[in-house]
Amino acid sequence: MYQASVPVFIRGLKVLAALLEKAAAHAEANGIDPAQLVNARLAPDMYPLSGQVQRASDASKFAVQRLSQNEAPKFPDNETTLPQLQQRIADTLAYVQSVPPEQIDGAESRKVALSFGDFKPEFQGDDYLLTFALPNFYFHVTTAYGILRQAGVPIGKMDFLGPYPQQGGSGA
Amino acid sequence: MYQASVPVFIRGLKVLAALLEKAAAHAEANGIDPAQLVNARLAPDMYPLSGQVQRASDASKFAVQRLSQNEAPKFPDNETTLPQLQQRIADTLAYVQSVPPEQIDGAESRKVALSFGDFKPEFQGDDYLLTFALPNFYFHVTTAYGILRQAGVPIGKMDFLGPYPQQGGSGA
Repeated sequence: MYQASVPVFIRGLKVLAALLEKAAAHAEANGIDPAQLVNARLAPDMYPLSGQVQRASDASKFAVQRLSQNEAPKFPDNETTLPQLQQRIADTLAYVQSVPPEQIDGAESRKVALSFGDFKPEFQGDDYLLTFALPNFYFHVTTAYGILRQAGVPIGKMDFLGPYPQQGGSGA
Repeated sequence: MYQASVPVFIRGLKVLAALLEKAAAHAEANGIDPAQLVNARLAPDMYPLSGQVQRASDASKFAVQRLSQNEAPKFPDNETTLPQLQQRIADTLAYVQSVPPEQIDGAESRKVALSFGDFKPEFQGDDYLLTFALPNFYFHVTTAYGILRQAGVPIGKMDFLGPYPQQGGSGA
């Protein structure tokens, strides 16, 4: 359970941080107001980039909290700049990395009950991770990627998938 | 390993099929040429909806093939309509569902070597699934969702996350 959760979230959060770095560099190099990127969205009723980063943070934070029962920090969702979003990711990483494997291994049979208005799913820990928390997390990281790609930030699939320490070749 | 792969892919492929159904209904109801949706994309150098569905199919198919060593069918990527994309998903589901758990359980230590030009990562089976195949699969399902949402198809987050058989409440 630990292997399928904490290192996966760490990796995804680092991917997200690297995407935001490229976004900041792109804005700087092209005289674009970074706020345009922070507020960009794929559809009028979808979250902008800032909201996607906040939800990716929450998806990983709450998953680790629910599985480990280790209280997570509260974040007020008040980030409005790329550096503030980077700090949010760093704070999320600090919490996720602080939870030891022994608090998560064994959580596969722990009951996880969620509540979103009338939608109140109940899961076993392993189903929660595999069919809710991970897809939700990847949804927001991927949507952040899509927003930046659509906005012209020079990123590619390898920015989402890589890097891999095991890789041979040039890593291009 | 089986639990973290085959049922997860089945669930995601069914989510994708349901999204395409809503896309078809939206096109029909609003006199939109479905080809507009099939060819819609988030950025000029990203795959259109058809390519996202083909890549989601491949991501799940190849993951199951590599982990189970059970030969997968070949798909020529020639789908150009929503019904053809639905057939692609159905064919992918048929293959993925055909692989028995005992062919995947134990694959966590199997070596998986990939090759994309100069990028030649090598993984253990469990790392391959968790850090490559699953994020890649969710990338394409989420991007298909983003394309359809941007095109005005009336879908929401629950179309991506739900439904859950364990849910209480109305499931709204």
